[in-house]
Amino acid sequence: MKRKLTLKSIAKEMDVSISTVSKALRDSPEISEETREKIKAYAKLYNYKPNNIALSLKNRKTNTIGVIIPQIVHHFFTTVIRGIEAEARENNYNVIICLSNNDFDKEVLNMELLANGSTDGFILSVSKETMQKEDYHHLNEVIEQGMPVVMFDRVVEGIPCDRVLINDTQGAKKGVTHMIRSGCRKIGIITSEDYVSVGRLRTEGYLDAHDDFGIEVDENRILKLDNIDDLDESAKKRIKTFIENNDLDGLFTVNELFAVYAARVIAKAGKTVPDDISIVCFTDGELSEHMMPSITAVSQHGEEMGRKAASILINKLERPEDETEEYGTSYIETSLIERESTRKLNR
Amino acid sequence: MKRKLTLKSIAKEMDVSISTVSKALRDSPEISEETREKIKAYAKLYNYKPNNIALSLKNRKTNTIGVIIPQIVHHFFTTVIRGIEAEARENNYNVIICLSNNDFDKEVLNMELLANGSTDGFILSVSKETMQKEDYHHLNEVIEQGMPVVMFDRVVEGIPCDRVLINDTQGAKKGVTHMIRSGCRKIGIITSEDYVSVGRLRTEGYLDAHDDFGIEVDENRILKLDNIDDLDESAKKRIKTFIENNDLDGLFTVNELFAVYAARVIAKAGKTVPDDISIVCFTDGELSEHMMPSITAVSQHGEEMGRKAASILINKLERPEDETEEYGTSYIETSLIERESTRKLNR
Repeated sequence: MKRKLTLKSIAKEMDVSISTVSKALRDSPEISEETREKIKAYAKLYNYKPNNIALSLKNRKTNTIGVIIPQIVHHFFTTVIRGIEAEARENNYNVIICLSNNDFDKEVLNMELLANGSTDGFILSVSKETMQKEDYHHLNEVIEQGMPVVMFDRVVEGIPCDRVLINDTQGAKKGVTHMIRSGCRKIGIITSEDYVSVGRLRTEGYLDAHDDFGIEVDENRILKLDNIDDLDESAKKRIKTFIENNDLDGLFTVNELFAVYAARVIAKAGKTVPDDISIVCFTDGELSEHMMPSITAVSQHGEEMGRKAASILINKLERPEDETEEYGTSYIETSLIERESTRKLNR
Repeated sequence: MKRKLTLKSIAKEMDVSISTVSKALRDSPEISEETREKIKAYAKLYNYKPNNIALSLKNRKTNTIGVIIPQIVHHFFTTVIRGIEAEARENNYNVIICLSNNDFDKEVLNMELLANGSTDGFILSVSKETMQKEDYHHLNEVIEQGMPVVMFDRVVEGIPCDRVLINDTQGAKKGVTHMIRSGCRKIGIITSEDYVSVGRLRTEGYLDAHDDFGIEVDENRILKLDNIDDLDESAKKRIKTFIENNDLDGLFTVNELFAVYAARVIAKAGKTVPDDISIVCFTDGELSEHMMPSITAVSQHGEEMGRKAASILINKLERPEDETEEYGTSYIETSLIERESTRKLNR
């Protein structure tokens, strides 16, 4: 018998769920003794070798959380990590970080690497390529093996896990509403293509705010960029053209880098922020804080998000008996940090 | 026999080096069969249990590099990681990152965690507290167990490992010399207390540049801060007072954050950069690039540094037979990125 026996193939052969096979092989009392014996006998007969994940589960608790994120160049991810680290430290957990570099294969490899006895569970923000491929087998695998996953920020549907999100739509709406209230009527947005969830949701918030005030949106005022993780030359070019070709009095951007580059283009065109054009960006980081003028920002409260994700995961790890396979989505509320790039409201 | 037998105590008892004991227990052909047998017999007699590190060495190569850094909020560390990731990827190595949060205990724990079968070797930038304590037993331990270490940026002496440094002194000298050449004669420096090596070396570069031009340095123009990893309220206050109380025409800072905060204080005082005061900062990151005016910076070439560190480590891991226990220090040359915060030189 050459073909490799997996939990999946055993499950299919025995007509039970993968989770049942996994639990039976781990001798879980949740499975009836009869079923357990049958599955174990089958596995033994065909010389099933549990993979490392199962082995690690059987052998030890690592008290370590694995964190997999697309990249760390963005200040937002570093603040989430700070929150995860703080919550973990208070609960005597270690944290190990791997970067997917927005690459699907890298994400799968990282997951296998950490699942291989190094961690008890995962906190994850999905890579762009994984979202494009819509291939989530690696997530399902570790979850089936009993390792809980908490997704944050860039999440996908259909995976049995908890999620921590910021209210992207509401956050963008807050920012755009602030500019409308201050008198802006020709507000542009620099966002991502729709397949990146955060971009899609923030664009929705931009549209919602206009809807609320009965302001029609000019499609030309929406710039969708493919890559929102970097400010590359192509993005610079498109932002420059976008600002030069639109007569804007306000600008909302889905990240800081786009905002600071736009501010430079605006200054070069001889216009003033906020007198000629107001700017609000998503993400409250070092750039928006230190720029002159400083930029009004939608704070994602990354540290709080990291703390929340870690707290949910540790809770699952500490009390597995409570695990009724119910999963929830927690929302971290955004807040608007008013700075110098927007006009003061008359309240 | 209750006392715990360690590689060290066996070495002492048998009057050989720790590395010999380690190698003998791993059955290395480098050790004569007679010595090997003697050491193994002794270890067996006293029921020596190799620790996890030794076990992992014996059992498998993980093809994984462990990276331990003080924090990732600084753009510099994120660029080093990018370099490590790139070099590792090209050589089919994985990268796992842990943060010490500048805490000695956390650094020791991280090291134990990763040495416990997760990695083959380490790339490390030492935490501030470790430097203060001067306790490096955790580094010596993993090295004794045969796991190579490469230190970068914040390094310490007396550890048998390779080092990758930027030429801090030369980098600071370049920046300060540039300001002197452009006519500045009253240049201040915002640096760290001397026990942080990068601060001490950059202060030396500042002094060297003045020496070369025969300009006397006014001690009042040197501000040494305790914490150069954050711009906290106390740092802000001291920077503000420093700039207000000194009649400066140039300012060199050991990081970006100090430079952008200083730029704000200068602007509030009604002075202009670079006409009244030139600014040069160490580290070429997003802040110095995007500020208006953009800030002339000493680039540390973090990505190159990461690549170099990873390449040295992988080389050691791939060719352990070449390991003649000789260690070197590689220097990454800095370069000055001229921007808007300094006056153009008449060349």
